[in-house]
Amino acid sequence: MNQFSKSIQGQQRVIIEHITPQLEGGRFAVKAFVDDTIKVEADVFLDGHDLLSTNLLYKFSKDKDWTSIPMSFVGNDHYEAYFDVKENGLYTYTIEAWVDHSASWEHEMEMKIKDGQHVNVELLVGANILDKMASIASKEDKTELKAYAKLFRDPKNYDESVAFASSEKMHHWIHQYPDKQHVSIHKELKLWVDREKAAFSSWYSMFPRSASTDRKRLHGNFKDVEENVLPRMKSLGFDVLYIPPIHPIGMQFRKGKNNSTTCQEDEPGVPYGIGSEEGGHTAIHSELGTLDDLKHLIATCKSMDIELAMDLAIQCSPDHPWAKEHPEWFKIRPDGTIQYAENPPKKYQDIYPINFESENWQGLWQELKNVIMTWAEWGVRIIRVDNPHTKAFGFWEWVIAEVQAVYPDMIFLAEAFTKPRVMEQLAKLGYTQSYTYYTWRNTKADLIGYMNELTKTDQAMYMRPNFWSNTHDILPYSLQSGLEPLFLIRYFMAATLSSNYGIFGPFYESMIHEANPGKEEYKNSEKYEIRQWDWKFENKLTHIIRMTNQARKENSALQRTNNITFCEIENDNILAYIKTHWNGNRILSIVNLDAYNSQGGYVRVPLNLIGKRPDEEYIVHDLLTGAKYFWTGEFNPIELNPQLMPMHLFRIEDL
Amino acid sequence: MNQFSKSIQGQQRVIIEHITPQLEGGRFAVKAFVDDTIKVEADVFLDGHDLLSTNLLYKFSKDKDWTSIPMSFVGNDHYEAYFDVKENGLYTYTIEAWVDHSASWEHEMEMKIKDGQHVNVELLVGANILDKMASIASKEDKTELKAYAKLFRDPKNYDESVAFASSEKMHHWIHQYPDKQHVSIHKELKLWVDREKAAFSSWYSMFPRSASTDRKRLHGNFKDVEENVLPRMKSLGFDVLYIPPIHPIGMQFRKGKNNSTTCQEDEPGVPYGIGSEEGGHTAIHSELGTLDDLKHLIATCKSMDIELAMDLAIQCSPDHPWAKEHPEWFKIRPDGTIQYAENPPKKYQDIYPINFESENWQGLWQELKNVIMTWAEWGVRIIRVDNPHTKAFGFWEWVIAEVQAVYPDMIFLAEAFTKPRVMEQLAKLGYTQSYTYYTWRNTKADLIGYMNELTKTDQAMYMRPNFWSNTHDILPYSLQSGLEPLFLIRYFMAATLSSNYGIFGPFYESMIHEANPGKEEYKNSEKYEIRQWDWKFENKLTHIIRMTNQARKENSALQRTNNITFCEIENDNILAYIKTHWNGNRILSIVNLDAYNSQGGYVRVPLNLIGKRPDEEYIVHDLLTGAKYFWTGEFNPIELNPQLMPMHLFRIEDL
Repeated sequence: MNQFSKSIQGQQRVIIEHITPQLEGGRFAVKAFVDDTIKVEADVFLDGHDLLSTNLLYKFSKDKDWTSIPMSFVGNDHYEAYFDVKENGLYTYTIEAWVDHSASWEHEMEMKIKDGQHVNVELLVGANILDKMASIASKEDKTELKAYAKLFRDPKNYDESVAFASSEKMHHWIHQYPDKQHVSIHKELKLWVDREKAAFSSWYSMFPRSASTDRKRLHGNFKDVEENVLPRMKSLGFDVLYIPPIHPIGMQFRKGKNNSTTCQEDEPGVPYGIGSEEGGHTAIHSELGTLDDLKHLIATCKSMDIELAMDLAIQCSPDHPWAKEHPEWFKIRPDGTIQYAENPPKKYQDIYPINFESENWQGLWQELKNVIMTWAEWGVRIIRVDNPHTKAFGFWEWVIAEVQAVYPDMIFLAEAFTKPRVMEQLAKLGYTQSYTYYTWRNTKADLIGYMNELTKTDQAMYMRPNFWSNTHDILPYSLQSGLEPLFLIRYFMAATLSSNYGIFGPFYESMIHEANPGKEEYKNSEKYEIRQWDWKFENKLTHIIRMTNQARKENSALQRTNNITFCEIENDNILAYIKTHWNGNRILSIVNLDAYNSQGGYVRVPLNLIGKRPDEEYIVHDLLTGAKYFWTGEFNPIELNPQLMPMHLFRIEDL
Repeated sequence: MNQFSKSIQGQQRVIIEHITPQLEGGRFAVKAFVDDTIKVEADVFLDGHDLLSTNLLYKFSKDKDWTSIPMSFVGNDHYEAYFDVKENGLYTYTIEAWVDHSASWEHEMEMKIKDGQHVNVELLVGANILDKMASIASKEDKTELKAYAKLFRDPKNYDESVAFASSEKMHHWIHQYPDKQHVSIHKELKLWVDREKAAFSSWYSMFPRSASTDRKRLHGNFKDVEENVLPRMKSLGFDVLYIPPIHPIGMQFRKGKNNSTTCQEDEPGVPYGIGSEEGGHTAIHSELGTLDDLKHLIATCKSMDIELAMDLAIQCSPDHPWAKEHPEWFKIRPDGTIQYAENPPKKYQDIYPINFESENWQGLWQELKNVIMTWAEWGVRIIRVDNPHTKAFGFWEWVIAEVQAVYPDMIFLAEAFTKPRVMEQLAKLGYTQSYTYYTWRNTKADLIGYMNELTKTDQAMYMRPNFWSNTHDILPYSLQSGLEPLFLIRYFMAATLSSNYGIFGPFYESMIHEANPGKEEYKNSEKYEIRQWDWKFENKLTHIIRMTNQARKENSALQRTNNITFCEIENDNILAYIKTHWNGNRILSIVNLDAYNSQGGYVRVPLNLIGKRPDEEYIVHDLLTGAKYFWTGEFNPIELNPQLMPMHLFRIEDL
């Protein structure tokens, strides 16, 4: 019978289909956080009328064996089961199911006995089942099982056998010793579990070289960051410090202030022009400090519950050592020179992009992995990746898996301000968090539409948004007006819509809004020059930041993103949304999107989400102002004056 | 570098995702009909700013090479292309895409030349591109390509080279000789293409043994069918004659009238109790005729544009030859007997079910395939399968593929009156058509919901409904009232909602409605006894059948199912739906679901589907009565009296 393909399991009768969660047929891992409970569902069925049994199987990467959990029947051939993920790292899971002849036998015996049928042959079937059980049973049970098999086979014991066939013990054995002949097993699916920081983080971004407060020493360094920046972050409540590249900066074609192609001799250059004779991606720009200074900064951060995020920009200045040592990693022009970056007709001669079609791609990938592994050895556990969408997708999938196999706690944030399919792909391939389009979503319809895309579609399984109101590259048009209410609400929405968010400071708190004309970039950007700041500066916005970050820490509902529900309110200028946590924490945020006028209306509170009856009173407690209001039922009035306070951050509390 | 898995294509940069049509990640074939045009879409993208090119590839099973069709850019990294399927059988299709360095070069040259840049190095790149083209070019082009490469390399020809770089000819070559280095190719997907009959068929089901009109000879035969039944079918407009099993019927435990367990000696038995000493599934019950008689029937059918559908019931009477020759294909009880069918406490001792967990499953599968192949050799090209859901899924997938590899025109209809997931699975595994839940969908909401499930979800890709108002097994409660309007509309909706439908006659036309009490089965069912009929009988229902079948033949909109759109009408007793065909044919059906009262309302005609302006007049021509009405715009009044005519079958015609 050589006509049958070996892949055909002719006697296997159970079908397992439509397992959720599942991302594109198991091509990509689904993502979760440590301590999550994962609900697994599937359609499981077979031909005919036999009963089936089905188990959820899962294991952590370090486990040898599957843990097995019986699935519950929901209806219409649908089953479900739950498992808890306690470890940071890779889990696999799948489902097994088999025709449960023993359970079918038990069920049919019951029907026949009720009907008064003589079941002598059925008892012989039962004896065979008991023998099979005995072959896999524990020592104690084995003897007993064999004894009952013997009992069943002797017609003299008919009544006793029939009684035992429907006993609790028999029922228990049937489930303890299943006969999994011809079991069907679905292909394995992957689940990546991240540590808590991947779910909940408040980022502050700044240029270390601007951290000096010494008028006589313009160039700041890691010590200045410890002294001036960390205390401010701590006071405002941020917990991730993200700094642009800290490596030696190239001299050839170095850019001057405001991206000028002519550069004065004393100008510091762009940190993204990485590499000089002093070294490349694993060297440190000497004016920032030594490797020991960096490690000291990381340690000080840690002592303050802050993490340092480094910036991985895979590109080189013409002075980078790789340009000499590995010209094959770049595109070589027919004249023998290395191809600089272009966006024709624009030329960026200070940057050599990497050629991922290099014949020596394996050496390149290894070296890039080596950069990340070196940083990891220094103690870095968060990496913000610059323009990941201009590097090959295959590389990211490989390198993130390689690094996280050793450092599962490593977090990668993708700065992929690019097209939707590309942004999504990077998240699917393994990026922990992603910059998003939030920066350009301003109207109520746009904000709700975008949040639903992120939290109510497949994206909820793999994309963790990190909302930024500004970055060192982007001063969005919406903020170029400089209107204080906009700075307040753009900040506030980032921090309450998304559990991960960030600002680029002190530009943001200072509400700096001067742009290069017609562009969404800061004038006199710190990318091209060094600034000095008053790191103790306070205003209304810093107050809101402090109160919001404190509320985020104290309210678990704000520590997740997918738990959002938008509330109806008949006013297109008011955005209202509620976040809930299984522990009972409920946060209702209400924002006036109009920077000029007071706006109000009746917010419809979803009573099912807050667990209240229509006639029941409850408290809404504004965590920004301390004010408390007594509300009843669904519809309650609010009004927000943008000149005073354009938002509420209500905790819903019981009386 | 043995660290890299061989599956990693490090230099491949293009991602191809989300190809449609596609069924569960390519696990199952998508289905189509001969002469369909298939629209293929996908997301295709790469990192960075290079341009890409992408082709749809497809081939018919007998083709050696792919046919390649360039895909069109739709927007947002989305591409589409079309191909026509002209053959009955298996197609495969996929998508290839590559970084188009030549096209990128052309684009960048244009930008730089516009900007007035000197492009000497770019011309050298161009020369290399021309050389690469020459290596795959036709003989004539090769010489010319090499000449231009030489031209590009000589700085003396700068102006001429620059001019040629942006010439039509260069552009043409770039697309004619693409450089597909590191091309990405998606995994192949399957498309099964059926002949037209799979899309459009009108079934008439009857028992040949009831075809005799000779009072002295009760048992009908194939000749009687030719003489009495085929003329009636032709006159009423049916084109598939479906007959229950025609094999020798077993004697042991033979059932009597109305499923009685006691059987008189002269009773004919149940055709589903297959097999006797005379033979099994490839033998013919002698009272029906010889194999030659059957072949003659098939030939006569063919001459009348009717096809014969045989009934495959995989089960045996205790007298079937397999019971002796292959006891291992059945479940053997511990007492050595073969297990008969049971649904405890009920026993069906006249039937031995097959055990698909048999150790000799390979022999079993081959023998069952042999049955079908034998029938196919007789000329049978349509098989109705009895209870396919009680046989192993894996078997169906294998046997349908095996048979259709030789007879791609073979049509399999699944009689899977079972749970939704099981019914769907059989269709996915290869069944051409499926019996459905139509028989029990009576209200407007149920009918619309069910039709949308069939035609607007994934089911549209694989499930071809065949709507039956009754079958020899089922007299639905809705018809047990015997109300004429219900017989009219249940017939009419089957024939106009679905392009495939059937009735069990002459029970249906005669509006026979006596059921066994509390059951949806006919009293005195022909399954257990022989009847004789007046095959020339006419009534209002036969008139409607004749007119409807004629309309189905003359209007291509009625020859497909997924082309349906329901029309608004503010009356829960009126169902209105329009079907359109690309050739301009438009059929609007309107049905009064209330058997007692006249019902009316304003039907909203979707003007976009019929191509009319709001102020434009058009004709609705009732194909059942010949009446014509002049309608204008969207909303038009109708009223249907169930005692007169409970439906309209309007063709929409231009003035």
